[in-house]
Amino acid sequence: MESADNGGFHPLDEKSLVEYIKSTPPLFTRLGGQAELDHLTIKEVGDGNLNFVYIVTSPKGSFVAKQALPYIRCVGDSWPMTRERAYFEARTLTEHGRLCPEHVPEVYHFDRSMSLIGMRYLEPPHIILRKGLIAGIEYPLLAQHMSDYIAKTLFFTSLLYHTTSDHKKAVAEFCGNVEMCRLTEQVVFTDPYRVSNINRWTSPYLDQDAKSVREDDELKFQIAELKSMFCERAQALIHGDLHTGSVMVTTDSTQVIDPEFGFYAPMGFDIGAFLGNLILAYFSQDGHATETNDRKAYKEWILNTIEETWRLFEYKFCSLWDLHKNGNGEVYPLDVYNNAELLRTAQKKYMNNLFHDSLGFGAAKMIRRIVGIAHVEDFESIKDESRRASCERRALNVAKLLLKERRKFDTIGQVISAIKEGSVQ
Amino acid sequence: MESADNGGFHPLDEKSLVEYIKSTPPLFTRLGGQAELDHLTIKEVGDGNLNFVYIVTSPKGSFVAKQALPYIRCVGDSWPMTRERAYFEARTLTEHGRLCPEHVPEVYHFDRSMSLIGMRYLEPPHIILRKGLIAGIEYPLLAQHMSDYIAKTLFFTSLLYHTTSDHKKAVAEFCGNVEMCRLTEQVVFTDPYRVSNINRWTSPYLDQDAKSVREDDELKFQIAELKSMFCERAQALIHGDLHTGSVMVTTDSTQVIDPEFGFYAPMGFDIGAFLGNLILAYFSQDGHATETNDRKAYKEWILNTIEETWRLFEYKFCSLWDLHKNGNGEVYPLDVYNNAELLRTAQKKYMNNLFHDSLGFGAAKMIRRIVGIAHVEDFESIKDESRRASCERRALNVAKLLLKERRKFDTIGQVISAIKEGSVQ
Repeated sequence: MESADNGGFHPLDEKSLVEYIKSTPPLFTRLGGQAELDHLTIKEVGDGNLNFVYIVTSPKGSFVAKQALPYIRCVGDSWPMTRERAYFEARTLTEHGRLCPEHVPEVYHFDRSMSLIGMRYLEPPHIILRKGLIAGIEYPLLAQHMSDYIAKTLFFTSLLYHTTSDHKKAVAEFCGNVEMCRLTEQVVFTDPYRVSNINRWTSPYLDQDAKSVREDDELKFQIAELKSMFCERAQALIHGDLHTGSVMVTTDSTQVIDPEFGFYAPMGFDIGAFLGNLILAYFSQDGHATETNDRKAYKEWILNTIEETWRLFEYKFCSLWDLHKNGNGEVYPLDVYNNAELLRTAQKKYMNNLFHDSLGFGAAKMIRRIVGIAHVEDFESIKDESRRASCERRALNVAKLLLKERRKFDTIGQVISAIKEGSVQ
Repeated sequence: MESADNGGFHPLDEKSLVEYIKSTPPLFTRLGGQAELDHLTIKEVGDGNLNFVYIVTSPKGSFVAKQALPYIRCVGDSWPMTRERAYFEARTLTEHGRLCPEHVPEVYHFDRSMSLIGMRYLEPPHIILRKGLIAGIEYPLLAQHMSDYIAKTLFFTSLLYHTTSDHKKAVAEFCGNVEMCRLTEQVVFTDPYRVSNINRWTSPYLDQDAKSVREDDELKFQIAELKSMFCERAQALIHGDLHTGSVMVTTDSTQVIDPEFGFYAPMGFDIGAFLGNLILAYFSQDGHATETNDRKAYKEWILNTIEETWRLFEYKFCSLWDLHKNGNGEVYPLDVYNNAELLRTAQKKYMNNLFHDSLGFGAAKMIRRIVGIAHVEDFESIKDESRRASCERRALNVAKLLLKERRKFDTIGQVISAIKEGSVQ
């Protein structure tokens, strides 16, 4: 980790950024070089809480410059946070981009001492998926694209494809991203289940609900199991923060950004993060319904997207497994799993475990967004607090059910039914 | 890993060892230094297959010098094998020795470029436990001592005691021992379940039994799950090869040696290795019975030792947990698990999972010793092949039951019953 501390770091402003670009050919040439120097436009678009994010454009080209700051700000508090997260973000972007270039923005440049990534600018009309979900916009290719991204990034970084030599080498490197892991451990797996002054919820409406989370023994047993798994199990290189705010979309394009929490962890954490945040979006719709748009059709679209994402993921993941069954992966060697039916059953068992992990992690991510430190705009943008609270309560109850009873769900269809039931209570 | 390749390595013989000792104060002074130079005795006791092991004594002191060679020999084949295993052996000995000095020989010196460990000489009457078990010798403190070793080494290197920062740092380092992991992956989790020319068994008696292992689908599903867990789950710093040949004993002393397979892995792999090898010892006793000694009492002693080892381990592990519940461990923070009953139930669930893992891994270790590459002297020393085969078959059948049905066992008493039943079939 020393390399980040080697000096040379300074936060860039618009002026020093220009100097930086001039001395960095991979960025400067992308803008057209010296000839375009007087035609640059620079716009700061980061929320300033974690990173500076500059959009740099010229008539000839563009990129985004993202610089990590040595802290994060959250609900007024400032936590010191290593700038090395930029290194792991760049590493994960590059690796996931190699495996799924269609859905990961290209990295043009990385400067470890400056904690700076130069990467593709996702031009308009790209918007953050979460904002699209709040606006009620359908993305007909979303399930197709996201299942593609998840299946490829997880399969190709798992022991189904890797040798254990390659795997352990990569695992060791990403152990260095421990500060980001610790943040997740605390805010997802611990804080919602204890009294903590950084927790918040829509009070007083959900006071009793938050208390019941803190007093639910079964929930606590289950969350401990998931926390252990998150900390101990190096299953694949996950994005680590795959909520709907980490995805940018247009009708045709789906791009996954911000993998600064990337490390080797249970696959279900990524799958669950995405599906769990879609479920939150679903439960928020009643809060966005108006007389002219009851959002009923849109809720159906979200449910279909949840179902399709899992189904397509499962299909694609198993197809990759079939395609590479003769490869370097060592857990299911072909001379042991030596007939089609045997391998098929092994896959079913594997996917069944992964399904349950995904439901557990997804539910944990939902719960923490309702009674923990960081909330989601899907709910926050519902101005009427009583209305917001009742949306949140329904989501929370479904999340508790999914977390505690996840092993009783055999199919995504059963999960959809549980969501629907939870929606009318 | 480069450090081992930095040159300077040469295999020591008795003559060059003396020169080495003279230039190595931590070893030389232990023998009394220059004054004793003419009174050294050097004895090579290694089997020469993996390492040189020299016992060096003088009238003033003694030590063992263990040097790793860049290969292992097994059943006539020679496999290249990194000398860096000596580094991980020294690291594990030192770490486990710090946590449980009573049962781990002291390390006096380690030379990474020479792959050489200087450590305590376990003087007579210490013998390898496996040889004691074959001879029918009772060790009344064995369960007490081994449960102590296992509980301390596993608890204090787990997330129940560590912060995740300390844990991930240690995990990353031990990822470097991947070559040794790969050896285990192949010979324990893969080879016994496929046709492989390095497998062997007591033929022709067990031909059908070996075939039935290779054709048992349920066994294959279970072994894949355990193999994944072994490769992915960094639960604690395990010894990695804790069979009864890695333990030296007298009536009063129990010393665990040879942790060159040490890395962060599921705890159950160590517990299972020890218990599984005791079960093998149990099933071998009928092959060692004579007219004057039917070994019945000894078989009872082994069963008691199995039962006591688990019971004491469980008690000691949970006691350590209670003692350190206010410590740095982060999976069960006290403000979440905030009453005695809740914590007790969480412990029960944790121990129950660990019990099932241990049965699974223990059974896998038994199976590979009967139909895989490396066998155990407990059975090999039964000269009559038909008699040996029938002992092995009973052990194999119990192992298959334990592997496939492990989650149906609630108590160690039920396991003992299954062993007894399997013994009369």
